[in-house]
Amino acid sequence: MKNPEETQSSQSVGIDLGGTNIRMALVGVGGTILGRYRFPTQADRGWKDVVLRTARGVQELLAHGGRGPFAGVGIGAPGAVLYKEGVVIESPNLPDWHYVPLRTLLQEHLGCPVMVENDADAIALGEGGYGAARGIGNYLVITLGTGVGGGLVLGGKLWRGLQASAAEVGHFPVEPMGYPCGCGGSGCLETVASATAIARMAIEAMESGRDTEIRRLSGDNIDNVDAEMVSRAARQGDEVAQGIFNRMAVALGMVLAGIVNLLHLEAIIIGGGVSASWDCFGEKLQKEMQKRLFPGPARKVKVLLAQLGDDAGILGMARRVFEEMGIPSS
Amino acid sequence: MKNPEETQSSQSVGIDLGGTNIRMALVGVGGTILGRYRFPTQADRGWKDVVLRTARGVQELLAHGGRGPFAGVGIGAPGAVLYKEGVVIESPNLPDWHYVPLRTLLQEHLGCPVMVENDADAIALGEGGYGAARGIGNYLVITLGTGVGGGLVLGGKLWRGLQASAAEVGHFPVEPMGYPCGCGGSGCLETVASATAIARMAIEAMESGRDTEIRRLSGDNIDNVDAEMVSRAARQGDEVAQGIFNRMAVALGMVLAGIVNLLHLEAIIIGGGVSASWDCFGEKLQKEMQKRLFPGPARKVKVLLAQLGDDAGILGMARRVFEEMGIPSS
Repeated sequence: MKNPEETQSSQSVGIDLGGTNIRMALVGVGGTILGRYRFPTQADRGWKDVVLRTARGVQELLAHGGRGPFAGVGIGAPGAVLYKEGVVIESPNLPDWHYVPLRTLLQEHLGCPVMVENDADAIALGEGGYGAARGIGNYLVITLGTGVGGGLVLGGKLWRGLQASAAEVGHFPVEPMGYPCGCGGSGCLETVASATAIARMAIEAMESGRDTEIRRLSGDNIDNVDAEMVSRAARQGDEVAQGIFNRMAVALGMVLAGIVNLLHLEAIIIGGGVSASWDCFGEKLQKEMQKRLFPGPARKVKVLLAQLGDDAGILGMARRVFEEMGIPSS
Repeated sequence: MKNPEETQSSQSVGIDLGGTNIRMALVGVGGTILGRYRFPTQADRGWKDVVLRTARGVQELLAHGGRGPFAGVGIGAPGAVLYKEGVVIESPNLPDWHYVPLRTLLQEHLGCPVMVENDADAIALGEGGYGAARGIGNYLVITLGTGVGGGLVLGGKLWRGLQASAAEVGHFPVEPMGYPCGCGGSGCLETVASATAIARMAIEAMESGRDTEIRRLSGDNIDNVDAEMVSRAARQGDEVAQGIFNRMAVALGMVLAGIVNLLHLEAIIIGGGVSASWDCFGEKLQKEMQKRLFPGPARKVKVLLAQLGDDAGILGMARRVFEEMGIPSS
């Protein structure tokens, strides 16, 4: 632990390495964002180029905003990550990444400590340090976006499984005869509760000739349909759209209640783009969970909306660095 | 840690406090059973009487078998347990038990250290120390009996949740419109995968007039139907009985694959009376799991049969005592 003065002014850089953009911020102890930097990932230019530009981005950020002691860099990467080694095994959004030694490469470029985590785990760390899960020791952050991701914290620590990032809650099977999933299974939670799934279910309804407001909103063109449009239709009272959110809420409620019964989590944090449609599925989800929670500690679980939005991963990785360096992060 | 000589001869008593019988054994380091004692629980005589007779049982066992240093007593109790305090909060099988300070009472009677755990957790400790999960750090023991119970070990330690025993895997929701469950929910795994559920599904088939071997085996009397009879019918090729085990295997496979995807467990250990019918559902279960496991570490999970049978809980609590006292238990 540093002395109080030094601690107060310590800074770290948190990075969200996405398939489309790389976003980073200089973060102070306590989670204050002191500066931001962002550029397109351009994954097609190859992993070496992406790593090099990431390192330069950090230098740029520090040149303009860095003051006081610098603790290091934390980076959240999509896909399977060996967090101890800082290696990205593979990533659906970064096609040519196979066992890329991200930590070693960035350390060589930057000459400072570097931490690597799975991006969903980074979000869980962020919400735990500075967001909805602050002060909670046992929780799951579930992100409802293009896919469904998860970060699990047990006893105050990320549960990562044996070697790579676990908490693949998006691939909890929930519909026995359900839609095929990218993972090779079928009926996974992701096939019912992601933005992709919501749009797919709406398109299925349109193609089966059902009368729905989504048809009008999309100009009767399935290419225009997205999850946000389905939520607008649901808010207007459209039964097809409401049925889609109900199906999603039942599936989510079953899996989340089961996980709480299994692990006695204190909180479930709902994040990702679809969480903006909470008004379309939140009540049904809570009801479905309540009736399935086992009597006792499980029934005390709180279901909360994520608070940090797109900054969760950045803040989580900044926090990860502070913790690794023994600097109190809040 | 004791000196080697003392360690070698250390003994503890493991107790399985059941609703019907209390079974205990004097156990040596390494899991050797050196003596046994067993008597009916007679829960209707009240909790004080049960505790007193349990203490006397231990004295009896020690009087006949005790040699060398005695480490203490471990007792696995059904229901919700505060393991740190050694208090039984409540138990479906012990009606008048409400916040019974089992540890304190037995310590007063016996003058030795006493550990208390939930009975499913005791089984998980036993299989981990001396049975199917030996040397494995991350596993779930699921017991398919009258109900469906679970004990979860993560990073080599029991995961008990916040205060009482977690791992209520029997109450993982699996059938959205399923059979009502004793917990207040419906469609829990226990309503499809317990001995009770298997018998119920067979009776439902008989009552709906289906042609099945179970009718002949039971003398067309639903009161005679039990899970073991359904497995006999399944082995004879009866389609109704096989359909029941298939439904069970699909439900189990979905939930277990989901839990493995979530936690990256290394092994699932299947125990309880119904595990004797493994030949009726094992293959289908493994197949169902395999197609739902997420690529990567999850696919390496092993599904194993429990090895210690009715002794798992006794041995687990004996091990618990050794570990608490710093005596290597194997």
